[in-house]
Amino acid sequence: MRNILMTVSYDGTNYFGFQTQPDGNTVQDYLESAIAGLTGEIVKIHGSGRTDAGVHAREQPFHFQTNSQIPIERWRLALNGRLPSDIRVITAKEVPLSFHSRRSAKQKTYRYTINGNRIPDVFQRHYQTHHPGHLDVEGMREGISLLTGTHDYTSFASRHSTKASHVRTIYHAWIEVDHSPANSGSDEQGVIHIYMTGNGFLQHMVRIIVGTLLQVGEGKRQPQDMKRVLEARDRAAAGPTAESKGLMLWKVEYEDAILMD
Amino acid sequence: MRNILMTVSYDGTNYFGFQTQPDGNTVQDYLESAIAGLTGEIVKIHGSGRTDAGVHAREQPFHFQTNSQIPIERWRLALNGRLPSDIRVITAKEVPLSFHSRRSAKQKTYRYTINGNRIPDVFQRHYQTHHPGHLDVEGMREGISLLTGTHDYTSFASRHSTKASHVRTIYHAWIEVDHSPANSGSDEQGVIHIYMTGNGFLQHMVRIIVGTLLQVGEGKRQPQDMKRVLEARDRAAAGPTAESKGLMLWKVEYEDAILMD
Repeated sequence: MRNILMTVSYDGTNYFGFQTQPDGNTVQDYLESAIAGLTGEIVKIHGSGRTDAGVHAREQPFHFQTNSQIPIERWRLALNGRLPSDIRVITAKEVPLSFHSRRSAKQKTYRYTINGNRIPDVFQRHYQTHHPGHLDVEGMREGISLLTGTHDYTSFASRHSTKASHVRTIYHAWIEVDHSPANSGSDEQGVIHIYMTGNGFLQHMVRIIVGTLLQVGEGKRQPQDMKRVLEARDRAAAGPTAESKGLMLWKVEYEDAILMD
Repeated sequence: MRNILMTVSYDGTNYFGFQTQPDGNTVQDYLESAIAGLTGEIVKIHGSGRTDAGVHAREQPFHFQTNSQIPIERWRLALNGRLPSDIRVITAKEVPLSFHSRRSAKQKTYRYTINGNRIPDVFQRHYQTHHPGHLDVEGMREGISLLTGTHDYTSFASRHSTKASHVRTIYHAWIEVDHSPANSGSDEQGVIHIYMTGNGFLQHMVRIIVGTLLQVGEGKRQPQDMKRVLEARDRAAAGPTAESKGLMLWKVEYEDAILMD
């Protein structure tokens, strides 16, 4: 029995998220079907986490166990030949049987992207939320800085969360503004990327944080209000859930020792 | 009567090019329909040039004449509200009646993008040709440098070209390699952007130049062969037409004096 770790990038626009669910059409379904087609085995893959419908991922890890003897360097191209063009296996390696893509993960980073220019970018339209109104980015920076650390993030979790504990740690959270797009003149806000690195994120957590932060940006909340929302431990205290298309699973990191060949 | 100059960006994936044609589904059709809906006038717009089916454009200029009194600053948002999300009007200004978006153009730049990494980039899949095999980029640089200047480009024009003269001038042609994408490791070729600036381009000209240049990159032709192909004035001497999705109209420039307010 071999334990195989792969990473997969996908444009989530046309999928109901990563993880298998009753209505089908998930990234996991396509990956398992491609693996079955290649090996003849029915395998169950384990992702480093779930993603919501319409959310994207850049090199999301997943692992599975197989009896197949196909050399590791052949898997990537063989699977990509069986996958739709908006799902691509990027890396493949054999790992110790003890490795688990979710439980072994040290930290994850998500990126949420807001196009603050007056006109949306047609080439990035599936990967950005368009918000042409004025945003106080410095206020948003101050607001998000109040969310780092170890906290109960119930206020920023879906009411449908089934986790026993809502305590998580956000190690870093930061905002970068990119003025490079072609239609981003000097009087435009540019493209705002919000990054969060943590040991785990609850259902909708990044999107609810962003939805609340947008209210800070719009001047509807004070930056300091983020702390009050956090302490309320009540979903009703936070803002709306930002739309899924702006969200991308950006990076999942493991202890180097686990992955040593 | 007012003369209005606009620029439009579009993802050409789902269109049969810019210019109206019998089968419909062109960018021009959608723009004219949006203008008609806004003003009640049937107008004919004039693009700075054609683009092939599947080719993209970043701020392509077009102009039209109208009796509408709608203030210039309102046009952009009003039209975008009537256009599909993969077509966006970026700028709008009033120009002298003598201005013509094609005839007044000083130079145009096209960009052709080749992803040379082993795995395509899912987020750029509609805007890049994937070519994972080894490419001799220095050879391609040498080859393309032989095409600049004023020449008869018949070898690099579609056999269906209806132009009386195939003499054009390429002012500059250059290649940039971007190693920044996430799945572009140190052993990967990166993303290769080929730029060409000229006073005009014949039908399929950029794509045939790129298709021939790829043969240089693959070692099937010598860089110096580009000069022989050019001098042949025969389409059969050149390589295949590179696929349309990698091509983007990058920039159209006018004499500043023409556009002075």
